[in-house]
Amino acid sequence: MSYDRLIAYLKESDHLLAAARLLQWDQETGMPAGGQEARAEVLSTLAGLSHQRGTSPHLRELLEFAQSEASTPDRIRQLELVRRDLDRAAKVPANLVERLAKATSTAQQVWSKARKERDFRMFQPYLEEVVGLKREEGALLAPSGGSAYDGLLSDYEPLMRTADWSSLFEELERELPTLAREIHERQGRVRERLAGLEGLRGPFPREGQLQLCRELAQSVGYDFSRGRLDLSAHPFSETIHSGDSRITTRIDESDLVSSVFATLHETGHALYEQGLPEDLSGTPLGGFCSMSVHESQSRLWENLVGRSDAFWQERWSLAQERLPALARVRMEDWTARARLVRPSLIRTESDEVTYNLHVLVRFRLERALVDGDLAVSELPSAWNEAYGNMLGIVPSHDGEGVLQDVHWSAGMFGYFPTYTLGNLLSAQFFRAAADQGVTGSLPALLTWLREKVHAPGHLLETADLARRATGRNPSASDFLAHLRERYLG
Amino acid sequence: MSYDRLIAYLKESDHLLAAARLLQWDQETGMPAGGQEARAEVLSTLAGLSHQRGTSPHLRELLEFAQSEASTPDRIRQLELVRRDLDRAAKVPANLVERLAKATSTAQQVWSKARKERDFRMFQPYLEEVVGLKREEGALLAPSGGSAYDGLLSDYEPLMRTADWSSLFEELERELPTLAREIHERQGRVRERLAGLEGLRGPFPREGQLQLCRELAQSVGYDFSRGRLDLSAHPFSETIHSGDSRITTRIDESDLVSSVFATLHETGHALYEQGLPEDLSGTPLGGFCSMSVHESQSRLWENLVGRSDAFWQERWSLAQERLPALARVRMEDWTARARLVRPSLIRTESDEVTYNLHVLVRFRLERALVDGDLAVSELPSAWNEAYGNMLGIVPSHDGEGVLQDVHWSAGMFGYFPTYTLGNLLSAQFFRAAADQGVTGSLPALLTWLREKVHAPGHLLETADLARRATGRNPSASDFLAHLRERYLG
Repeated sequence: MSYDRLIAYLKESDHLLAAARLLQWDQETGMPAGGQEARAEVLSTLAGLSHQRGTSPHLRELLEFAQSEASTPDRIRQLELVRRDLDRAAKVPANLVERLAKATSTAQQVWSKARKERDFRMFQPYLEEVVGLKREEGALLAPSGGSAYDGLLSDYEPLMRTADWSSLFEELERELPTLAREIHERQGRVRERLAGLEGLRGPFPREGQLQLCRELAQSVGYDFSRGRLDLSAHPFSETIHSGDSRITTRIDESDLVSSVFATLHETGHALYEQGLPEDLSGTPLGGFCSMSVHESQSRLWENLVGRSDAFWQERWSLAQERLPALARVRMEDWTARARLVRPSLIRTESDEVTYNLHVLVRFRLERALVDGDLAVSELPSAWNEAYGNMLGIVPSHDGEGVLQDVHWSAGMFGYFPTYTLGNLLSAQFFRAAADQGVTGSLPALLTWLREKVHAPGHLLETADLARRATGRNPSASDFLAHLRERYLG
Repeated sequence: MSYDRLIAYLKESDHLLAAARLLQWDQETGMPAGGQEARAEVLSTLAGLSHQRGTSPHLRELLEFAQSEASTPDRIRQLELVRRDLDRAAKVPANLVERLAKATSTAQQVWSKARKERDFRMFQPYLEEVVGLKREEGALLAPSGGSAYDGLLSDYEPLMRTADWSSLFEELERELPTLAREIHERQGRVRERLAGLEGLRGPFPREGQLQLCRELAQSVGYDFSRGRLDLSAHPFSETIHSGDSRITTRIDESDLVSSVFATLHETGHALYEQGLPEDLSGTPLGGFCSMSVHESQSRLWENLVGRSDAFWQERWSLAQERLPALARVRMEDWTARARLVRPSLIRTESDEVTYNLHVLVRFRLERALVDGDLAVSELPSAWNEAYGNMLGIVPSHDGEGVLQDVHWSAGMFGYFPTYTLGNLLSAQFFRAAADQGVTGSLPALLTWLREKVHAPGHLLETADLARRATGRNPSASDFLAHLRERYLG
């Protein structure tokens, strides 16, 4: 009875967040420019009200009553998650939450313009404000003995600290640059052949790409009666509320790789959302396990599935039908194109081998920003230097450099590292599924993921979920083995 | 100081409503079907929270502090409107507000399906629930000595009661059927000529229509940097918040009249919204005067301007460019088509002469529903009988009959009559503008409307606003004179 009252309260709180999620989705996909200022105010108010509800004495009271009742293991976990959220929220004053909501809403709008105009200086003061506020927030959230950046990291992986992430990245830094160089050399002849193939450069008209992207998403199990596909500057997926998990992509008329793999990536996120336990929707236990696990699902469908020959054998004639420029392109050339490994500037369009080097750059820079070791004004030059060192190339302008990601403008410091853990887990889940013989059929693979990864919601933390699904601790080994097998096998 | 605190509180309350408006806009334009149930719950929660804020002792306290301060006439009016809203909201318990929000959200979704499938019985139980709840609400809102329907009417025109509306409709009923018959006879030859013109039946492809509609809206002053045009089952306009006033239309590929005049109609609404006093946005004084005045603006642009020869002289070649089927259609035939008067079934596509007979049918039926003189189960037959009596034709199915309007599913009982007052006012405003010589130029006309009608916001009630803008009391005379001049002149 007390438990039910608590759940009703939580679901109502999530309704406010659902409204905010739609306001944000709309802001990225179709809001007229004139609405920016008011939209930021609306989002700020909703964030403030959500924070009020999430920290209210009434909620604490509901929780304590519910904890005093006899309970089941699921309910105990639910209450544990509620308490964790409450304790987290109580650390950040409402005023800071509202200032952050407003600052990030404005900063995202300025970022979008600055990115188009390749003008970091336009964005700088807004980013400075966001960094200052996040530093404040991180200090409040920091675990005992931890830094502000530890505090921000704990929002995404509560059990991992800066040192854990650092050693993970150091392990990858030991392997990946060498691996990437070796593959790059091996692919020399393929690269030359593909460079001569005009059909791979389109034109791929917008409508044909959109239709193909819809069909690809649907073909792996994305349910359009509970979602939709739109365009946005930076592809993303967003669940508004139960029964409405949306994805976006972007279109480059001269490069089909951009829209197709962004779509498969976001579809992976949305498949996870569409597989979460429906009846627990709007409660912590019904939510996703972590951003890392979320990313494991997007990368699994994008890379493990989407860049394989098997996937395209069943879909190549459809792609050719939708996009006449592909008529004389052989499937092997398309998949070879989709698996090209080369140093590049844009993270979201980079190959699966160098991808984690992009993340590594961001991890070190954002850590330095939050720690105060790097001024925002120095960020573009630090970015370009890091790319030079890590990938051997330097952006020719900030639009393809430091301005490429939405994350920092949105205040998402501490998020980037979860991409890398997600990449590792994608290979680990896929390996486990393969060992159980379900990767030959996509519906069977989805069913396996539904059971092992989606249906549990937030019953377990990342490492426990991985252990239960795969029998092993999260590690880089399956990921590195996958890269060696696919690219050097 | 107290006044500023009150205003801040009101603006924050409007942010919740802004979120609800976007959720509703999205529901009508693009939400996946699977989101229906959760969407209804989100809207219900927001309605409940808005109601809480709108009736909270804190608001009353803020109001009383503000009233104790020295003030200006504008502020006094603002406070008067706040008190009126407070008193109105205090009459309806939060629980009823939430039940209404949920019932109408669901009913709208079922209505949309029932309309497509022409199946009133599917919709009936949902409408019954809505009618029951509205009757409850009307009884709580009823002015002293008034009925439940009086209570619902007072939401739209606080100073007018059932008896006032009845006598207005009786006056129109004395004139319009005769006028419509006379015009219909006169148009016999034109009708025959137009029936033979294939070019008027398209095909008018969706993209070309959409582009033309965008250009027409823009050409009369609609600002797309603060709005957007989409498709929906029933065209509507919705302001999300300041800087974001949206419109929708619908497309019939064999009839251009449908999309073009729906667009001009909704553009008229949006021009009003875009002309409201920006700095007062989110406060009662910064809102529109009444639904009647709102409708006067939509009808002015749709009918007085949009169905005139002068309007199309400047735009006909554009229409022909966008829609090749019009290539061999003469402008005179198009405007004659746009001015055809004939008994018809669909209100939103009816001509400006018979339009108010459609409204009259709804006024009498909804009054009977709320008064309990008519059961929902009897509504389709009562509807068909009324159409037979009033317009001489009977729907062949409920999709073109009782299911055509969204209003009742949305709980908007008492709204329909304002359409008719809006029609009368559209002619009265246009006449006054013509007398001042500004109707020859659309920018000059818009400037006049901005000053006389838009900029005052809710400073005055409908009748006072009309008197100040036109020098006369609201009446049917300019409207009837306009019809006689245009159709019998």
